Amino acid sequence: MKYLRYLLIALPLMVYFRWSDPESGWAFLTAALSILPLAGYMGHATEELAEHMGPKLGGFLNATFGNATELIIALFALKAGHLEVVKASIIGSIIGNILLVLGLSVLVGGLLHGVQRFCTETAKINATTLLLAVIAMLVPSLFMHYHSAVDGASVKLSVGVSVILLLVYAAVLYFGFRHAGARAGALTGSGKDVQQGPQQGNHGEGWSKRKALAVLVISTIAVALASEVLVGSLEHTVATLGWPEAFIGIILIPIIGNAAEHSSAVLMAAKNQIEVATEIAIGSSIQIALFVAPLLVLAGLIFGQPMTMVFNEFELVAMVLSVWIAKSISKDGETNWLEGLMLLATYAIVAIGFAFA
Amino acid sequence: MKYLRYLLIALPLMVYFRWSDPESGWAFLTAALSILPLAGYMGHATEELAEHMGPKLGGFLNATFGNATELIIALFALKAGHLEVVKASIIGSIIGNILLVLGLSVLVGGLLHGVQRFCTETAKINATTLLLAVIAMLVPSLFMHYHSAVDGASVKLSVGVSVILLLVYAAVLYFGFRHAGARAGALTGSGKDVQQGPQQGNHGEGWSKRKALAVLVISTIAVALASEVLVGSLEHTVATLGWPEAFIGIILIPIIGNAAEHSSAVLMAAKNQIEVATEIAIGSSIQIALFVAPLLVLAGLIFGQPMTMVFNEFELVAMVLSVWIAKSISKDGETNWLEGLMLLATYAIVAIGFAFA
Amino acid sequence: MKYLRYLLIALPLMVYFRWSDPESGWAFLTAALSILPLAGYMGHATEELAEHMGPKLGGFLNATFGNATELIIALFALKAGHLEVVKASIIGSIIGNILLVLGLSVLVGGLLHGVQRFCTETAKINATTLLLAVIAMLVPSLFMHYHSAVDGASVKLSVGVSVILLLVYAAVLYFGFRHAGARAGALTGSGKDVQQGPQQGNHGEGWSKRKALAVLVISTIAVALASEVLVGSLEHTVATLGWPEAFIGIILIPIIGNAAEHSSAVLMAAKNQIEVATEIAIGSSIQIALFVAPLLVLAGLIFGQPMTMVFNEFELVAMVLSVWIAKSISKDGETNWLEGLMLLATYAIVAIGFAFA
Repeated sequence: MKYLRYLLIALPLMVYFRWSDPESGWAFLTAALSILPLAGYMGHATEELAEHMGPKLGGFLNATFGNATELIIALFALKAGHLEVVKASIIGSIIGNILLVLGLSVLVGGLLHGVQRFCTETAKINATTLLLAVIAMLVPSLFMHYHSAVDGASVKLSVGVSVILLLVYAAVLYFGFRHAGARAGALTGSGKDVQQGPQQGNHGEGWSKRKALAVLVISTIAVALASEVLVGSLEHTVATLGWPEAFIGIILIPIIGNAAEHSSAVLMAAKNQIEVATEIAIGSSIQIALFVAPLLVLAGLIFGQPMTMVFNEFELVAMVLSVWIAKSISKDGETNWLEGLMLLATYAIVAIGFAFA
Repeated sequence: MKYLRYLLIALPLMVYFRWSDPESGWAFLTAALSILPLAGYMGHATEELAEHMGPKLGGFLNATFGNATELIIALFALKAGHLEVVKASIIGSIIGNILLVLGLSVLVGGLLHGVQRFCTETAKINATTLLLAVIAMLVPSLFMHYHSAVDGASVKLSVGVSVILLLVYAAVLYFGFRHAGARAGALTGSGKDVQQGPQQGNHGEGWSKRKALAVLVISTIAVALASEVLVGSLEHTVATLGWPEAFIGIILIPIIGNAAEHSSAVLMAAKNQIEVATEIAIGSSIQIALFVAPLLVLAGLIFGQPMTMVFNEFELVAMVLSVWIAKSISKDGETNWLEGLMLLATYAIVAIGFAFA
Repeated sequence: MKYLRYLLIALPLMVYFRWSDPESGWAFLTAALSILPLAGYMGHATEELAEHMGPKLGGFLNATFGNATELIIALFALKAGHLEVVKASIIGSIIGNILLVLGLSVLVGGLLHGVQRFCTETAKINATTLLLAVIAMLVPSLFMHYHSAVDGASVKLSVGVSVILLLVYAAVLYFGFRHAGARAGALTGSGKDVQQGPQQGNHGEGWSKRKALAVLVISTIAVALASEVLVGSLEHTVATLGWPEAFIGIILIPIIGNAAEHSSAVLMAAKNQIEVATEIAIGSSIQIALFVAPLLVLAGLIFGQPMTMVFNEFELVAMVLSVWIAKSISKDGETNWLEGLMLLATYAIVAIGFAFA
């Protein structure tokens, strides 16, 4: 986080390229680089603001803004009609959080601290929620693949599934607030603060409500600007670099949108707080699946860009297997470096697959 | 159960429609409504009779007649050549028991009693048995999808798999009798009675052997009659309502055939006996997969309606994922309302998928 | 093992058929029969030699030569261009170890000793490793099935995945040496010796280093010779018997190559050492997936027989489900005869599927 802030220098460069050469690879690169620290500020401001608003409203804020960067990028990409990129970035965020972030956290934590332990109860709720999300995302795809129905039905089905997912998300949040009490669980994000409490060093003395709100507003506007540039230069960059759009959606955008969050999960693992790291990684995946993805489907209706939840088999199988291996590793509440390495190896194999596709 | 008996009024109406307008939607509706209480009487009479026959023979009776209603409906549908409806109803019964019945039980139980606990040992055997059943049902389908073989081979393969499944069913029953002793396990159904023992209120003072036998015979004949009407009016009703046959097979028939059983599972959960509820739901799924389905394949040979175990991918994936989420929820021996809600949400999503197909 | 040695009589017969009628079914049969005891001698000599070389080098030797017989047969088949047989034998070895060997061990052990228990920690690492291997083997296949890319890309992808798998294999070995200490884990094979220690009866007094080396060299040469005959007579035998090549690859070759290992796993289970039996079965599967399969892909490059890791769906689904049911059975660290029977029933169902294909 501390070092990421130097990347803010990319922001003015991006503004320059936006006007001089908006479709160039340079615009894409500088936009991508600016988003890294901006997303960090957004996340931090959200947490600070949440602290001023009490556990319930604050937890709700965390649960809503936790993946705001991905949501903003995806909204711009959706508006510009890059439906495949949006869908790929949903899958990529889920896989990236499960395999890359969790893998790095478990590897680093395991190397520094040997076997690390965490509560299996939260892990189980998270695993089941993730599984439900995966099932929900499979249904419209299967429907399309095996029934070759008209596209309109597929959109209707996706909207129906999205509404159910948003209701489940509300129930999961309510369950977290109600039952988990102080250690408010993965989605509300307040777990991070509670447990970061003793090492407030990197928090300073806490921001005032006014400062937190100001930083949140400014960084959100800046992220939106950068997202617009990123999406605007996407097509040209894809053509120049020769990378497939799916690769950018699956691998690149999730890393850009989550870098700040990723680094804080790994940092937590390095401090022997593997439980917080796990909650950030899995909680973020759940949020993407149960909140961001359905929201994008509904936003697609408004934007006149009807988006379905129909993914290709490779994406779906990669997602199902990621969830499976994560469940397999987390279910006993113990992790070691070999398990982290295995998650990363799985990510590498899947990434190679997408790169070749 | 108590309230279901008022639906018996549909029985004379059905008889009327059977002669006046046998293919109408009214015949279908009254047949469906009559089956609800009749299935309840059949199930209850089976249990009462089982009590008079000692644990072994009684358990065997329960294990054989436990899903008699579905079996009878399916036999009539099979004879009439509605192979797709029969196959869909097999999948639908398995999914419905796992997602709808277990989901409702866990939700109601969790809302009334907080976290509920049950023995993980039985749960594990059940989960593994269910998994084997799923694998068995996948093999003929995969064989057909990827080898596009002649249909005769597919029937032969299904018969071979059916014989193996029936042998496994026998072994599972034997294991239940031998090892589980008094609390005889999911399939023999005697678990229900043992644990219902203290609240015999809804049992009355127990029926005499003669009464139990008489009720069993009469209700079985009535169910057979109603099944015949139901199947006879199926085609016309499908055409009138515009619902796909698969939807009727997957969603409607399993609910009709299992309503009595379903309500008793939910009732048990409401009485904080989640273990009994789980055994009814999962045990019924296992019985369908290991006993009813193979029996139907063999019956198909006799009826000259060679039925395969080839299901479509959507059905198979829905079944695999249902088993997965049920295993994920049951493996720690604890349930809460959120898990019940998730099972129900999964059912809703799958049902929407089938409705659109 | 003791009785297998009488099969050595097939060796001179094979040499005779090799010169008189090298493509006949007799050459195939005698070659297959000779491999059974030869593989046993190879395995035993490897273990004896390993004992003379200290735990680390010895463990490495076990980990490298543990599946030498399959590797040699596969190399000859690869060189002769029987790519489908090679790939089928990889899948068949993995499935066979998980379902047939583990199933027989659990069944026999359960019948003789009731419920058997083993350490869940090793089981978990093994399960996760196996899962990673399965994911790795799925990726190139999915890539090919859904992207219909040029074959060159598929080979490149397979090579990339193979390199990652070999690195993971090295990490798994290192983890085993480092963390598991004395009870060195499934892959290094020394677990067998440690626990066989007290019943050295069947080991004699241990072989000298010279004797172990001599037996290893001679039996390896003999296995190579027999493998050449086996592969050379393969095509003719397939044509004569009318069995599909896939069936020979999936079912027959793995049984031939593993018979000695299989019998020692079942023997261990019969001696109430289910943990050793499990480690032999699962460890062997992992070794095939993480070491033998990638090695064969790389060897294909050298032989000018570019082999991919692209398997058909039936093989992949069978493998995924085998791993799933094995995980389901092993995760609680307890086994009983019913679980063994279920593994065997699954094997029978899968074998029927392959036989019909």
